[in-house]
Amino acid sequence: MHKANDYSRSREAFSRACSLIPAGIYGHQGPVEGCYVPVEAYPLYASRAQGSYLWDLDGNRFIDYMCAYGPNILGYNDPDVDAAAAKQRAICDCTTLPHSIMVDLADLLVSTVKSADWAFFAKNGNDATTGAVMTARAYSHRKKIVFFKGYYHGVAPWTQKIDYPGIIPEDVANNLYVDWNDFDQLEQVFLANKGQIAALIAQPYMHGNFQDNVLPAEGFWQKVRKLCTEHDVVLILDDVRAGFRLDLAGSDHFYGFEADLICFCKALANGYNMSALCGKDFLKNAISSLSYTGSYWMSAVPFAAAIAAIQKMQRLKLPALLLKKGETLRSGLSAAGKKHGFDLHVSGEPALFYLRVADDESLMLHQAWVAECVQRGAFFTSHHNHFLNAALSDADIEETIAVAEEAFAAVKQRA
Amino acid sequence: MHKANDYSRSREAFSRACSLIPAGIYGHQGPVEGCYVPVEAYPLYASRAQGSYLWDLDGNRFIDYMCAYGPNILGYNDPDVDAAAAKQRAICDCTTLPHSIMVDLADLLVSTVKSADWAFFAKNGNDATTGAVMTARAYSHRKKIVFFKGYYHGVAPWTQKIDYPGIIPEDVANNLYVDWNDFDQLEQVFLANKGQIAALIAQPYMHGNFQDNVLPAEGFWQKVRKLCTEHDVVLILDDVRAGFRLDLAGSDHFYGFEADLICFCKALANGYNMSALCGKDFLKNAISSLSYTGSYWMSAVPFAAAIAAIQKMQRLKLPALLLKKGETLRSGLSAAGKKHGFDLHVSGEPALFYLRVADDESLMLHQAWVAECVQRGAFFTSHHNHFLNAALSDADIEETIAVAEEAFAAVKQRA
Repeated sequence: MHKANDYSRSREAFSRACSLIPAGIYGHQGPVEGCYVPVEAYPLYASRAQGSYLWDLDGNRFIDYMCAYGPNILGYNDPDVDAAAAKQRAICDCTTLPHSIMVDLADLLVSTVKSADWAFFAKNGNDATTGAVMTARAYSHRKKIVFFKGYYHGVAPWTQKIDYPGIIPEDVANNLYVDWNDFDQLEQVFLANKGQIAALIAQPYMHGNFQDNVLPAEGFWQKVRKLCTEHDVVLILDDVRAGFRLDLAGSDHFYGFEADLICFCKALANGYNMSALCGKDFLKNAISSLSYTGSYWMSAVPFAAAIAAIQKMQRLKLPALLLKKGETLRSGLSAAGKKHGFDLHVSGEPALFYLRVADDESLMLHQAWVAECVQRGAFFTSHHNHFLNAALSDADIEETIAVAEEAFAAVKQRA
Repeated sequence: MHKANDYSRSREAFSRACSLIPAGIYGHQGPVEGCYVPVEAYPLYASRAQGSYLWDLDGNRFIDYMCAYGPNILGYNDPDVDAAAAKQRAICDCTTLPHSIMVDLADLLVSTVKSADWAFFAKNGNDATTGAVMTARAYSHRKKIVFFKGYYHGVAPWTQKIDYPGIIPEDVANNLYVDWNDFDQLEQVFLANKGQIAALIAQPYMHGNFQDNVLPAEGFWQKVRKLCTEHDVVLILDDVRAGFRLDLAGSDHFYGFEADLICFCKALANGYNMSALCGKDFLKNAISSLSYTGSYWMSAVPFAAAIAAIQKMQRLKLPALLLKKGETLRSGLSAAGKKHGFDLHVSGEPALFYLRVADDESLMLHQAWVAECVQRGAFFTSHHNHFLNAALSDADIEETIAVAEEAFAAVKQRA
């Protein structure tokens, strides 16, 4: 029997945190929203990180398949990105005026992202999605926003659910919800709300939690694009999670269409703090008219990091690299399951795959297998998609597959 | 006649920016919202910063009284803060799990800020104010929010004005507005909306743009505190702008009361990207119940910077230091005006003073004087409060007063 990791320092720190911080660790990095199920299998604090690895406070090492929930795309502490950032930090970061490196980053994004005629910078992915919706409303003088069910577009009140604590009916009064991949339903909603819809906001594919991830149906995005154009509805692509992992030119380009507004964050600067909203020329006046800014939105260090990160992604031809790693991992994990009689269902794009042990409606079997993987050093979560990074080596993938197989064997033995 | 600065490189960069970035430079760091009036007097891009100085893209040096609109409180590139941040960066920044330094910062804030029983971390000041309002609504199951006219609480739709582009009536449907320092009016609004007000949100004093800043009337805050308690209305202090400059224990402590929730950003980490919402124990369950998080909210580097910054502020007894610098500057500037027959009105707290050349309803005289100061290397803005930092030396203050005097002489000569 595999000896369980010692997490006593993580538990001590968490216990101390609970008296000082709401929920100890809130949000997606905490035990609840982080889908750390079963929670006993997981560490709660990091002590350091390097490349594809994360060490917890008790010194356990993990091959990290959460990648900070997206920001880690080149490997933790990437030397090229960190050097560019350190060089800029010695010059200036957050000052009264922007540093001209801001213009250089805008130039690089506009030449890299197909649907970008301009770039606007902020801090959270949430700043980008909220700015996109405000831009669409300023442009159209309409109020309604269409969402695909299973969406996640940040934490601003307008994007939450009506029954969530702190949310009031007015926050979500203009939201319309449609099933993902159901074009007929979408068309009906557009017709029933003719002249009232400011924007459709969507992720490039359905990568929600607690559900198999679903790619766009053949031709779906092309029909959606055409419908939005016909109804003068601004098409907002929320590429915060998938951005740069599928296609450096944007996930809309990957699926063969062009969004009107595209939101980036996470992978944009390999963990340095920034987000971006890019868009088409016809919306430039609208976004210029907004009152929209923040204390650190023009800080120079993240701009330097983003330039170095994008240039490195270009040199590495990163999306092709991640696709290859993801396919090797996917087939290895599936084979490991099969060997022990389990059907491991891998959904979503390989660079941000979602796992589910099938034939297990209770999810207990799946959670037990994930727990055995985590205890052996492969950091998966039970009900959230995963992320790959460029530092993940062939040896890491081999080790992960071996861990997965041992984990399946352990689960089978206990069943 | 003083030779005007050469800003040709700033202008070239701005012209390039206009084709790539909405409005070239948007928000408070841009020529419009930045109150850079008259715009010809101002540079638009920084090339570097150090201590109390900012150099523009053309190599002109300025004593910077905007301090990045607040974040620069210890001096740009403070060696102690930067060393702590660099040390943490080599370990880890944004990873899948928070680093335990998060708990250390919470501990330091709770022991430093009088009204803080707990600390919650985010990125923008706007994240903190929005989280505060959501917390108050989750706690009270009420919807309405009371504001003092002339407020600025960030850029989220709920805090904007109904006629701003991109804002819809639902965003601001539950907002009530009261005149600053008018307790009777406030009490009437509380009575007329009994049982419906979730929170009162306020800055510690009225430090709005385009108006003389106004300190709280004697006893005002004590009466407000009592009224909020009687009506079970959450008292939110937006200390994003003034925080740490007046009192390390919070600007509520400075004015002799205790808020229920207090929002920090800007000066918290000397320009490293973070904000914090602190509050009372009775609201801890409410904030814990929110769905509220972001990709970088638990990044470790800004936590290390904030710890180093707060400890240095404590060592320097910073608020007393800034008060002394501010008083010297204020009397020097006023005397410089008087010498040439001008009445320079200095309002607000000395650490974040607001300037107005009085007896000038057109504002042209004031703007002309500010322009002459900027051209001589003292970076003031025409209609926004200013900020002091610890690196500002006696020699800097002397130089600024000399510049101010020359500027008054130049304005007088032209009148």
